[in-house]
Amino acid sequence: MNRGELLYEGKAKKLFRTEDPDVVRVVYKDDATAFDGKKKGNLPGKGEMNNRISAFFFRYLAKNGVDNHFVRRLSPTEQLVRKVKILPLEVVVRNRAAGSLAKRLGLEEGTPLPRPVVEFYYKNDELGDPLINEDHIAVLRLATPDQLEEMKNIALRVNGLLMELMEGRGVILVDFKLEFGLDRDGRLLLADEISPDTCRFWDAGTEEKLDKDRFRRDLGDVVEAYREIWRRLGGETRD
Amino acid sequence: MNRGELLYEGKAKKLFRTEDPDVVRVVYKDDATAFDGKKKGNLPGKGEMNNRISAFFFRYLAKNGVDNHFVRRLSPTEQLVRKVKILPLEVVVRNRAAGSLAKRLGLEEGTPLPRPVVEFYYKNDELGDPLINEDHIAVLRLATPDQLEEMKNIALRVNGLLMELMEGRGVILVDFKLEFGLDRDGRLLLADEISPDTCRFWDAGTEEKLDKDRFRRDLGDVVEAYREIWRRLGGETRD
Ligand SMILES: Nc1ncnc2c1ncn2[C@@H]1O[C@H](COP(=O)(O)OP(=O)(O)O)[C@@H](O)[C@H]1O
Ligand SMILES: Nc1ncnc2c1ncn2[C@@H]1O[C@H](COP(=O)(O)OP(=O)(O)O)[C@@H](O)[C@H]1O
Ligand SMILES: [Mg+2]
Ligand SMILES: [Mg+2]
Repeated sequence: MNRGELLYEGKAKKLFRTEDPDVVRVVYKDDATAFDGKKKGNLPGKGEMNNRISAFFFRYLAKNGVDNHFVRRLSPTEQLVRKVKILPLEVVVRNRAAGSLAKRLGLEEGTPLPRPVVEFYYKNDELGDPLINEDHIAVLRLATPDQLEEMKNIALRVNGLLMELMEGRGVILVDFKLEFGLDRDGRLLLADEISPDTCRFWDAGTEEKLDKDRFRRDLGDVVEAYREIWRRLGGETRD
Repeated sequence: MNRGELLYEGKAKKLFRTEDPDVVRVVYKDDATAFDGKKKGNLPGKGEMNNRISAFFFRYLAKNGVDNHFVRRLSPTEQLVRKVKILPLEVVVRNRAAGSLAKRLGLEEGTPLPRPVVEFYYKNDELGDPLINEDHIAVLRLATPDQLEEMKNIALRVNGLLMELMEGRGVILVDFKLEFGLDRDGRLLLADEISPDTCRFWDAGTEEKLDKDRFRRDLGDVVEAYREIWRRLGGETRD
């Protein structure tokens, strides 16, 4: 296989061209960043875990009717995905207060929310990914009102499906971040990754954090926690 | 008249009980604060200007069908208003990017917005009055979905009316903040104040700031600018 030109290197993944102009190869890196890139680290094994977990979630979502960019996993750290033009939005769904929401609303971390909260952040590193509302999205033309509604609906469906899945594995889905893109035909498609880098997972019994907060807060055993999530999903690591 | 007990002293106004349990007396103070109270000042004459300007705007809005708490002006610095339970929300309408919006979205101050932007802030000094979205308002039960819709509609009507009024006086309405409350019967009512403390006004010719930004940014001649707004409104200061 022609390995293809590097199209983009982000903080956690690299994107390479393939022979199919509608498909890109994603390589999950071991690099970790937090706090707008101010905190940096290298976590050997993270790329493999996120690639496997992300592939697992995307396949599970597709099976349950949530179309997404995932095509197939290529290797421990690589997957093929449909190429989209990513909308500069981070769509966050929260079931409990944590992180910036706990701070913003003055809620204790872990407070269950009476219903899921959907938030949009402007994906813009220079501005520090600020929270925005639907009017901001409209005046910046970041998405149409229809795309906005669709993203909210998909995000809530993903939340329901992932909550149910993780509950069965003894894991609380605290919150997660999604990204969406437009394919060549302008169709909205769930993209990017779904992994312990982009979700908050707590052990249902001990409330131990099994996600990137271990890196953000220097709790140690980061990749071990990601591996635990992969184990709970029944994951194999032979291929 | 019985002067009545002090009910509440805020940063810019004092509220006193009256003989009518549904009516309070508001005394506009000369105190100025900015940046969550970190910057403080005393601006002799500000209270009078804000009392007069606020009374003028509330009367104008009522005449144009926007019900509000204003009853009548009592003296240069006092007015009677209907007592409400203030919702802990600040409703902001913006026609141009300025202040925190310019910063949040990376827009140059003064950039015209293609349509008015409505924002909700959680009125909570300890949390620094954070921007929130409709889901946050729902989970914190700060307002019902119906109240939210009504506040947005009223805010946009106020914007249209004030824009038109100020345009005729050579003033650009950049943005403003409203507060709403519930009366004894649970009816939503526009309340608080509308003044150069709570609006951004720019001279249409020179774009000179005629509002509280003169205080925030140490531009000097603060009360003179407020007096200029009052003059543009055709204001008298004899009573
Ligand atoms: N299907 C896709 N097509 C095109 N770009 C994608 C796709 N999925 C994700 N991306 C983008 O790949 C880039 C690399 O990912 P990442 O390393 O997480 O970047 P970032 O540092 O911007 O978070 C991101 O800009 C992400 O939005
Ligand atoms: N009609 C009203 N009934 C009761 N309270 C009101 C009314 N209008 C305004 N208020 C409240 O009066 C208080 C005093 O005003 P202000 O000095 O501006 O306070 P703050 O420091 O909270 O901004 C505020 O809490 C404001 O919300
Ligand atoms: Mg990313
Ligand atoms: Mg006030």
